[in-house]
Amino acid sequence: MPELRKDPVLERWVIISTERGKRPTDFPTITRRRESHNCPFCPGNESLTPPEVLVIRDDGSEPNSPGWRLRVISNKYPALRIEGELRREGEGIFDKMSGIGAHEVIIETPEHQKDLVDLPLERITDVIWAYRERTLDLRNDFRFKYVMLFKNQGQAAGASLEHAHSQLIATPVVPKRVHEKLVGARKYFDYKERCLFCDIISQETKWETRVVCQTEHFVALEPFASRFPFETWVLPLKHDNSFTNITRNQMKDLARMLKIILSKLRQALSDPPYNYSLHTDTLAGAAKDHYHWHLEIIPKLTQVAGFEWGTGFYINPVSPEEAAAYLRKTQVSLEVIKKK
Amino acid sequence: MPELRKDPVLERWVIISTERGKRPTDFPTITRRRESHNCPFCPGNESLTPPEVLVIRDDGSEPNSPGWRLRVISNKYPALRIEGELRREGEGIFDKMSGIGAHEVIIETPEHQKDLVDLPLERITDVIWAYRERTLDLRNDFRFKYVMLFKNQGQAAGASLEHAHSQLIATPVVPKRVHEKLVGARKYFDYKERCLFCDIISQETKWETRVVCQTEHFVALEPFASRFPFETWVLPLKHDNSFTNITRNQMKDLARMLKIILSKLRQALSDPPYNYSLHTDTLAGAAKDHYHWHLEIIPKLTQVAGFEWGTGFYINPVSPEEAAAYLRKTQVSLEVIKKK
Repeated sequence: MPELRKDPVLERWVIISTERGKRPTDFPTITRRRESHNCPFCPGNESLTPPEVLVIRDDGSEPNSPGWRLRVISNKYPALRIEGELRREGEGIFDKMSGIGAHEVIIETPEHQKDLVDLPLERITDVIWAYRERTLDLRNDFRFKYVMLFKNQGQAAGASLEHAHSQLIATPVVPKRVHEKLVGARKYFDYKERCLFCDIISQETKWETRVVCQTEHFVALEPFASRFPFETWVLPLKHDNSFTNITRNQMKDLARMLKIILSKLRQALSDPPYNYSLHTDTLAGAAKDHYHWHLEIIPKLTQVAGFEWGTGFYINPVSPEEAAAYLRKTQVSLEVIKKK
Repeated sequence: MPELRKDPVLERWVIISTERGKRPTDFPTITRRRESHNCPFCPGNESLTPPEVLVIRDDGSEPNSPGWRLRVISNKYPALRIEGELRREGEGIFDKMSGIGAHEVIIETPEHQKDLVDLPLERITDVIWAYRERTLDLRNDFRFKYVMLFKNQGQAAGASLEHAHSQLIATPVVPKRVHEKLVGARKYFDYKERCLFCDIISQETKWETRVVCQTEHFVALEPFASRFPFETWVLPLKHDNSFTNITRNQMKDLARMLKIILSKLRQALSDPPYNYSLHTDTLAGAAKDHYHWHLEIIPKLTQVAGFEWGTGFYINPVSPEEAAAYLRKTQVSLEVIKKK
């Protein structure tokens, strides 16, 4: 059973999730399976994964068999487990909790050779729809406080299988980073009576130096205090604390924005590994006025080293203004992007 | 001129430090120079580096020429610059500061092929002595609030040159992580009237399950909420808020502890890349009662991915108890370790 443990100094939770029977020096080996026949995410291999919890099928095909175009499953090697009661206990001066949670995989396409960015807009919209559906469903489980949706693309970004997929983890505590973001946003709101993110959008779209592009409902920008070269945030132009409120039209537009940004990053940086994570309000959704959901994309181009681990400071060798200018002029010749 | 920028949500500072004339997609290339003749840290190549600010020489050799056994220089490509005044200003709703600071390199040995762990105890003691000397000197510059000492060993841990070296960065603000640690430690002290780290040491040395080894003045343990497999902390047994108070005897003993732990990690994990960082009080040193300096060693074995970036949670596939047991039984047959 995995365990949640709290760092007593930083009040940061850590998931200790060991696989029994393994020696401590055996780490999850990162295997890139170019071969489709032994890929557990490929059609025909559905028996290699836990059963689907959400699926999109065009035809009348059977559950857990080929015929799907998007499939959500429980992670076969979950960091947190869905079964059991949330038990809190002490260990001397330390605090821990049973490792209850959900860990799911969103298989974005049946096609083994395609990345998310290669999919047509309708398929990317399906992925965003699945993010929303799964979050709404997990919100009904009162053990959970937060759902983090994220994607690891490429080996250096931590992907263990190359077949295009995203993941979600539902946690029984509000994660430290999320808590800090909510607190920071509230502090600003208390002082100004305005949403910090709305103010950022207003200033950045006026100045334009850090803006990469804008669609009907979204803006993509390089944040003022970018930690990493080409770190890119996508924010809805209209204030909303929770991703789960996204409309069908916004989903379509977000798919378009994602396709543009991921195409630009691929073009500018030679198909870099990347991570993205979706930042939204807690499942309780108490930050209506002051939080503003957004997506953070981090291309994996530099190493986090001793100074960063020690201080929480980041050293970024590329200014966000340079990165934004470079991405603005990066041409992506996709038919689909030109038409509104 | 580098710039310090504050993330308005998280109040985290970032150093934007671009090298002029470079294209934004040119990242610092990581080159391993096995050849000693073109290594800027090798004897004979002193002209390739800025002049030494601290040196240990046995003979009467000239400054900035061969004959040294330890050498501290300014970083040729500093993240922060020593010259200039600390200027704070706004940029609309954002906050920034001129990138004032110190960035130095401690070249640990003249021998190109040796790692820190290969050096005799006297030489490792010299390195620790240099850490202390440089911190004490930089404390006299009132622009600085903190000095972070750290080491990146191996390419995957962010080292750009393989010749054994550590680094220090002096910052004009107290870094976020340091501030959080100080706040966490104070919170515990306010509640218990005891140092949190002293309590951890007391409990862990009694239970022994997470202890790797103990010397006269230090204990090495795997922290209860380890973020990473084989994350190892070294703490002085006797309470002290600041590393700068270390005595000559403690330096010798810390050298011994470092040699033991780094040898064990090398043996157990096949010479892994690693980072370490030295956590001590701010230069003002106001946390006498409640802070307790320590060294955090992180072998680079897993990737930080989307979930970690999004939440600040970590998923650790090896429990600290397993790691400690494994390191305890890892034999390191060093003469020097056996003698007290």
